[in-house]
Formats: sequence, structure tokens, C-alpha cells
Amino acid sequence: MARLGSFDRLSLNQITTERWSLREAVEGCVRAGVPWIAPWRNKVAEAGLSESRRMIQDAGLQVSSLCRGGMFPAATAAERQARIDDNRRAVEEAAELGAQVLVLVCGPSPDRDIDRARGWVAEGIDQLVPFAREHGVRLGIEPLHPMQAAERSVVVTLGQANTLAEQFAAQDVGVVVDVFHVWWDPELYSQIARAGERILGFHVSDWIVPTPDMVLGRGMMGDGVIEIRRIREAVEAAGYNGPIEVEIFNRAVWDAPGDEVLALMKERYLEHV
Amino acid sequence: MARLGSFDRLSLNQITTERWSLREAVEGCVRAGVPWIAPWRNKVAEAGLSESRRMIQDAGLQVSSLCRGGMFPAATAAERQARIDDNRRAVEEAAELGAQVLVLVCGPSPDRDIDRARGWVAEGIDQLVPFAREHGVRLGIEPLHPMQAAERSVVVTLGQANTLAEQFAAQDVGVVVDVFHVWWDPELYSQIARAGERILGFHVSDWIVPTPDMVLGRGMMGDGVIEIRRIREAVEAAGYNGPIEVEIFNRAVWDAPGDEVLALMKERYLEHV
Repeated sequence: MARLGSFDRLSLNQITTERWSLREAVEGCVRAGVPWIAPWRNKVAEAGLSESRRMIQDAGLQVSSLCRGGMFPAATAAERQARIDDNRRAVEEAAELGAQVLVLVCGPSPDRDIDRARGWVAEGIDQLVPFAREHGVRLGIEPLHPMQAAERSVVVTLGQANTLAEQFAAQDVGVVVDVFHVWWDPELYSQIARAGERILGFHVSDWIVPTPDMVLGRGMMGDGVIEIRRIREAVEAAGYNGPIEVEIFNRAVWDAPGDEVLALMKERYLEHV
Repeated sequence: MARLGSFDRLSLNQITTERWSLREAVEGCVRAGVPWIAPWRNKVAEAGLSESRRMIQDAGLQVSSLCRGGMFPAATAAERQARIDDNRRAVEEAAELGAQVLVLVCGPSPDRDIDRARGWVAEGIDQLVPFAREHGVRLGIEPLHPMQAAERSVVVTLGQANTLAEQFAAQDVGVVVDVFHVWWDPELYSQIARAGERILGFHVSDWIVPTPDMVLGRGMMGDGVIEIRRIREAVEAAGYNGPIEVEIFNRAVWDAPGDEVLALMKERYLEHV
């Protein structure tokens, strides 16, 4: 299996340097020679949308994705409508920032009826698609790990995300493959092949053993058990050659100085991705 | 959806009262009118195999399963053989105790190559089947939650367990459906239907939110988000009408007096299973 030869596709997902403001993250990427960034909406809001766009553009960075839209299921029709409205704002922000894709973390069920919640996700995306298309923003459904089914997303496998995405045109809706969420899946490679041109993003981190925390337990690439390179080559064989985001939720990584995190991330990227 | 009308099918999986010896668990079941028990091998070893058989028989209890065999993948051929040898002892113990099934927790991979580890699981079961058949013991593959893929089992979905079981005769190898491990699966109901007569066991507990721990975070039925009754009715529609084990890994449950746990378990069984 072949190493990546450069950092041309490397993207800093902003959560990896959670303590940095957007300005600090942009400047950190420039210092480190990381050409892509994936900002989070709360950080964009802190900096202001226009100012965020300007600083990213001035720095010469490209935006791999905006994190995140989604969170469609809710107990009442009014609340579900409020979620759609918020997703529309996320689409506008993604368009303004020139993001390649708006990542959708689809949301948990408000009660025990997970099938109904899954229906609300499909309805939510259906309502969002025309607005996103008008704004030139593609929607990327990110299946989360099944351990987050009750708290973050009722969409938990790549197969399920593919089935959902296929209800829409490939120009409008695709999937995001995050190795942390999908590495365990016996159908992983067949579902990556099935996703094909619908793969709109590829995220890397690692699964460390023992896993210290369900949310903040992700590791730096190489520190865990995921066959990251094999998965990267599979998404490439399926047709994806876009940016590769490093997205790590981990307290120890967050507590380290950002420049050190980026230096380590670059080293591990060549070694393990 | 209909409640269960009696405790005829209720089984205490011994881990639910982890602090009790086998004798205490047997006596507790008799006091509570719980007709089935699922002992763990370490507790059987403490009490002695013949004495375990005798006390369970004298108490008039039936054995729903023995926990557990499995753990097939290992780095060396010698170690994998040692695992097979241990599984043979587990089969002998299950036969001696009159257990309906030996539960297989298939084991994690010794390295990053999860596909190869899955192959070792299939090979291990293949080696074990003739011995188990001679002893009249059926093997029940229990898919574990994907969050346990790196530490306990490379078999993580009911679909995968079905595919594995179908390599063998239905008389020899089936699957065990534990709601905690499978509730999140978009294919759950189709895979339960597919399993049909191969369903050899049904385990209940609940998924509590927020989940306090990846291993010890299971809840008492009714304390979480799992549609337990719907799943129970689905396994019945598929043809399973055997014992229903309550299997709860939870520090607070373990710290409570066993008789109180059994009383609560019975109440919740009628209310939520």
C-alpha cells in the first residue's frame, strides 16, 4: 500500500485544535503548510461569517467542509421546523465560506421510536435539498458509530447512509466516510464501493485500546487499531480524491499546543494514512 | 403489544448479580421464583462443576445458557489451539450442566487485521462443532456491540452472525440476540427474521442515556431507550419461545442487594419485556 506523497489533500478539522479560535486555526494551518481547513459553525459565529470567509481566503486555504448541519429529529413539528431553519443557515454559511460540503450529523431520536426518527431525518434532508442546491452546497450524510445512536445520530452505518443518500441526486446528497465511525463494519468495503461518486469527504483519526471515552476517546492516526491506509485506498478506488480531514475528539490532544498537534498530525498522516 | 403473562421464561444471567456465588444465585432464584439461570464459567469453577450441577438440579432450575466460550483469534497457532482446547472444556461444562446453549463471545483481533481475525473465528467454530455435537451442546454466536469490536468481539452485527452461523447446520450453530448489542441496527428486524430457528437465546437489559460506561453502562429494562418489547415480539415471530435472560453489566446494579435486584428485574420484566 502506497504512502501519500504530499500534504496537498490534508485538512485540519477544527475540532482537532478545539481551543484555537478560527483565526488561530487558520494561522496554524498556514504555518504548518496545511492547505485545507474544516471550520465548525460555533467558531465561525465567534469570528463572524464575513470575517471568517475573508481570513480563510486571505490565507489561501480551501474549505473541505463545514461542521455541521443535521439534528433533524425532534418531538414536535415546530421544533423540527426550527431545525430545518437552522440547517438553512448552515447551508448559507457553507456557501459563503466556499465549503465543498455541509456535513450532516443526523441527530438522535427524541424517544424510543428510532424508526420514526429515521423517517424524520429523511424528511429533513428532503426539505433541505432544494435550498442547498440553489446555494451550490452538497450535503454529506455522516454515519456515526452505533455507540452514538442514542445521543448523536440515528444514522449509524455506511449502508444506511448510502440508502438514504440514494433517495436524492448524487449532485445533491452524498456520504462522509469517517474511519472512526465505520472501521468495525463487516460491510465496510462493499459499502464504500457502493457509495462511489457519492463520497463527499474522508475523515481520519484512530480507535485506541482500551477506549478511554465514548466521545473524547479518539486517537491520533497510528495510535490505534484502524486499518486507515486500507480504507483510504478503498475510498480512492471508489473515486474519491478530495481532501482528507483529521478530526480528533480527545482531551489530551486538545490540551496540547496546537502547533505541536499539527506537526504530529502531518507526521502521522504520511506514516499511517 | 402484549405483556408476558408469567415468569416461566425468565432467566437470571449470573452477571446481573455479579457479587453472588453460584449457590447464592441459585438460592436467590428459588426465593424469587425465577425458573431459569445462566451461570458463568468462573462461578461454576469456584463452586466445582459437579456440585454446580447438583445444586442447580436440586433447586429445580433450568440452565438457559453457559457464559461463555469463544475468544478464538490469537496471534499464534499454538495460542489459537489453546483457545479451542478451552472451548472444548466449556462444551463439556455446558453438557454437564444441561445448558441449552454455549454462548460464544468471539473475541477481538490481536492486531489491526480484523478480516483475518474474523477468519479465525470461523475456523475456531468449525473445529468446535463436531465436539459440541457429540456432547449435545448447541453453539450460540452472540454479536456484540460494535463499540466492543477492538476489545471483545470482531462479530458485531446480527447479519454477520447469521452469515457465520449459516456455514453450519442449524442443529449445531445459531445466534444469540441481546438487545443491548443490536438495538441500533437498521437491519435488526430483517436479520431477526432471517435468523429464524437459529435464534438460541434472547438477552435483555437497556441502553441508558447518557451512557456512563462502555462496559458497565447497561441499564435495567425500562431505564433506557431500547424498544425491548418490539424486539421480543420479533424474535417470537421468528420462532423463538425459549428463556429470556436478564444480563446487566452495571456497577450500581452489582452493588445493590441481590434480592432487591431480582425483585426489580421481575417487575420490569412484566412492564417492559
